[in-house]
Amino acid sequence: MAIACPKLQLRFLGLARSLPSLARQPLPCLLPARSSPIPVLRAVRRTAKARALSAVKDDQSLSSIITELEQEQEEDETAAGEDVTRRLPERWSEIHGRDDWAGLLDPMDPLLRSELIRYGEFAQACYDSFDYDPFSRYCGSCKYNRRRFFSSLGLEGIGYEVTRYLYATSNINLPNFFTKSRAGAKIWSQRANWMGYVAVSDDETTARLGRRDIVVAWRGTVTRLEWIADLMDFLRPVTSVGIPCPDPSVKVESGFAELYTDKDPTCRFCKYSAREQLLTEVRKLVELHSRAGEEVSISVTGHSLGSALAMLSAYDIAEMGLNVGEGGERVATTVFSFSGPRVGNGHFKERFEGLGIKAIRVVNVHDTVPKVPGILFNERVPAFLRRLAEALPWSYSHIGVELPLDHRRSPFLKETVDPSCFHNLEAHLHLLDGYHGKGHRFVLASGRDPALVNKACDFLKEHHMVPPFWRQDENKGMTRAHDGRWGQTDRREVDDHPEDTQHHVQRLGLADDHHH
Amino acid sequence: MAIACPKLQLRFLGLARSLPSLARQPLPCLLPARSSPIPVLRAVRRTAKARALSAVKDDQSLSSIITELEQEQEEDETAAGEDVTRRLPERWSEIHGRDDWAGLLDPMDPLLRSELIRYGEFAQACYDSFDYDPFSRYCGSCKYNRRRFFSSLGLEGIGYEVTRYLYATSNINLPNFFTKSRAGAKIWSQRANWMGYVAVSDDETTARLGRRDIVVAWRGTVTRLEWIADLMDFLRPVTSVGIPCPDPSVKVESGFAELYTDKDPTCRFCKYSAREQLLTEVRKLVELHSRAGEEVSISVTGHSLGSALAMLSAYDIAEMGLNVGEGGERVATTVFSFSGPRVGNGHFKERFEGLGIKAIRVVNVHDTVPKVPGILFNERVPAFLRRLAEALPWSYSHIGVELPLDHRRSPFLKETVDPSCFHNLEAHLHLLDGYHGKGHRFVLASGRDPALVNKACDFLKEHHMVPPFWRQDENKGMTRAHDGRWGQTDRREVDDHPEDTQHHVQRLGLADDHHH
Repeated sequence: MAIACPKLQLRFLGLARSLPSLARQPLPCLLPARSSPIPVLRAVRRTAKARALSAVKDDQSLSSIITELEQEQEEDETAAGEDVTRRLPERWSEIHGRDDWAGLLDPMDPLLRSELIRYGEFAQACYDSFDYDPFSRYCGSCKYNRRRFFSSLGLEGIGYEVTRYLYATSNINLPNFFTKSRAGAKIWSQRANWMGYVAVSDDETTARLGRRDIVVAWRGTVTRLEWIADLMDFLRPVTSVGIPCPDPSVKVESGFAELYTDKDPTCRFCKYSAREQLLTEVRKLVELHSRAGEEVSISVTGHSLGSALAMLSAYDIAEMGLNVGEGGERVATTVFSFSGPRVGNGHFKERFEGLGIKAIRVVNVHDTVPKVPGILFNERVPAFLRRLAEALPWSYSHIGVELPLDHRRSPFLKETVDPSCFHNLEAHLHLLDGYHGKGHRFVLASGRDPALVNKACDFLKEHHMVPPFWRQDENKGMTRAHDGRWGQTDRREVDDHPEDTQHHVQRLGLADDHHH
Repeated sequence: MAIACPKLQLRFLGLARSLPSLARQPLPCLLPARSSPIPVLRAVRRTAKARALSAVKDDQSLSSIITELEQEQEEDETAAGEDVTRRLPERWSEIHGRDDWAGLLDPMDPLLRSELIRYGEFAQACYDSFDYDPFSRYCGSCKYNRRRFFSSLGLEGIGYEVTRYLYATSNINLPNFFTKSRAGAKIWSQRANWMGYVAVSDDETTARLGRRDIVVAWRGTVTRLEWIADLMDFLRPVTSVGIPCPDPSVKVESGFAELYTDKDPTCRFCKYSAREQLLTEVRKLVELHSRAGEEVSISVTGHSLGSALAMLSAYDIAEMGLNVGEGGERVATTVFSFSGPRVGNGHFKERFEGLGIKAIRVVNVHDTVPKVPGILFNERVPAFLRRLAEALPWSYSHIGVELPLDHRRSPFLKETVDPSCFHNLEAHLHLLDGYHGKGHRFVLASGRDPALVNKACDFLKEHHMVPPFWRQDENKGMTRAHDGRWGQTDRREVDDHPEDTQHHVQRLGLADDHHH
């Protein structure tokens, strides 16, 4: 199948890294130019915004810049009389990669941009809700009740409902990824980490999208990049972890495979593997909604290590045949990946794409994470050499279509050498909002608040006066009781798994499946 | 006048420091033993508490320990049928140092302990309300409106009302003390830092105390101890900053003197010096309440550098004759000092005490701050040597009565080498609560929540599971507006000075007084 441009460059990574400017040169040939649906309006908007942006001076606050931008935008929209998202139902397949995003990336398609940001925000929600505090009894869990997940995050209007939380066991070889409480006992779980959720569009949103959209969002890590060093860089066949692939040469990095499939029978949160939790939930939702005669889609998203899980789980869904409705119709399955590492070998990539799953990978060219594992042998190695290396256990290949962004293009971001800034998901969403195509000027398309960038990093220029790492709970979640004492509030419940999980695990033929 | 023991030890500081155990030995001679008013009850209580404390194990939560303590205490109080604070009106003079606290410190008098904690909490309120965030437009100010000061801090029941905020100019030579915003413009003030407040007891509390109590609380610094290095260690006559002392050999450290007396006519917050702000307010309040026939007291408190300002300002109040009521009656003036550095020379100490001001200094023997300035020549040097050195500009003397505590006595605190822990005010209040006298076992008297210790440091043993540095605002004060944008909320006003300040400055004869 046709693969979009950046992956065909076949340059040695070393070269690209020593000459980073190369990565930012326009690639004129491979992506056909695509004219904007509203070219005149667009020109007007750009001029207005360019003016607004040129006004970014030392003492201008973010809010005044953005107010100016939005005023222009409102004028634009009044003039156009429509919002690009209104065309979502008819353009859904295209936006979800039917044509491998050919022609949508340069210049950047406004609807695709807004959809990428929308799915990125589902992944971001995993970070914003995660309890990182080692002094919390709920460290490693989701801070919010499943039923109030989006509203607790101030995302009341998102139009989706979380149907299930996903957990993984921390008893695996990624010690620097897992977040552990320092409390010896009396914590919510000794073994589990909350890893994400499954959500489904509500009726109103379903009408707006033109289908029932199932979102799977996997958590990665915002700041701690040490987990990369834990990757064993060792490929194992997906069949060895119970995924029913006919080809034993299809392999994925063993750490990701274990994270996805390991379980711990002693823990009520991870007595089912993340895989079992996800597959049973997807099966239930696809059945429920396709039986009702609705068109269904599956959109899997994740950042960083969460992207690896997104790739692996989307592949698994297809390999298990769960992306098929009651009437045998295909359920479009798409991965929206952010700053993702490589996941498997070339056979994995071929099988993944052969199953019809689509993946778009948003990366910052300065971020290290998408360069691992497979720093030596990967899809950039010339084809003949790659074939040769395919047999080696450390020959990895990226999947899908890459959308390379460059944080140096944003006038809001400061110079830094901090790799966790380059890797930050909110920074990627900000870069998306300003991206109009290679060589195009950085202009915020939606006016998405750049202040969000500093939620969990220190990346905005100081004169914007947005505190670094500003997302924090009041008094670290300590509250004062009636008797005047301070303590962490007890949670009534931490969501675990529905009672019919075992039933569905059996229906999927996973019951006796233990790969160890 | 008689001076209580620790100041008479006259040991070389160097010796005391190399043999720290010396400092913790009981000093049997100078403090007459004082029997507890309720000895039997006390013994019961101790046993119960010792039992409770012995239960402090790795997995016991703070709240369960404290619940046990308080249950015991309630039983005690029921048995006694009274609360020690009921005797406050009759014991006020004694508690405020009439007899230089002789006999109240070992064993520790329960009412004095509770009063020391109460005044310490006024000083702590300065930290809890201060805006430290360099990314805030209000950095260096008090976060709360004056009229809602105590209620914003959850101290609704404190029974005092803040009548005035105190500011100082940052244009002086203590760069590491002042907190400055990184914003170039559009901030509340380029030059000022909020330094504390004046409060006065409300009618109900006045009835309970037996007098109208004016509290002056000065802010110091919780964590940043670098300001110590800025002290010029240079004594200047108090007359040189306009304090009308008849003796030109009365000298104080020049940095403290400048902080107290400097002003900046271009700034609406510090166009009056902290001295002018304070003296006019004290004058007004003493006049108002003594005219109404009430007995009035002045209680000045501060921690760290705030203690230096407390000493200096209490002295100034007396030197200016403001501690005299309408009928010529003396207004008792007492300093409750926490972790304070030395302030002036031996003549300053003599003049201070000669004016009848009382000062009690609560220190942690491991804290460095009370050892500066005057690390070489101070009140511990043998008298003959001290006389010799008195002419030198770096011969300092502590004032008043010291209450030495030792953080190693608290079973709640962990081993650390962090000097900002040793210096922390909340830690001192915790140590006070557990202090019953030299050689006595550490037992929490009131059950004051030890979790408070970790508000702004990392000092509690980890198994108590209280997050370090837990006092923080939600999202660093960023809030989301209706349009979805994040920003710091605008404050309607920042309190400055009453309009009659100039009038009162003139009445006090300070109008033409500028010492530069």
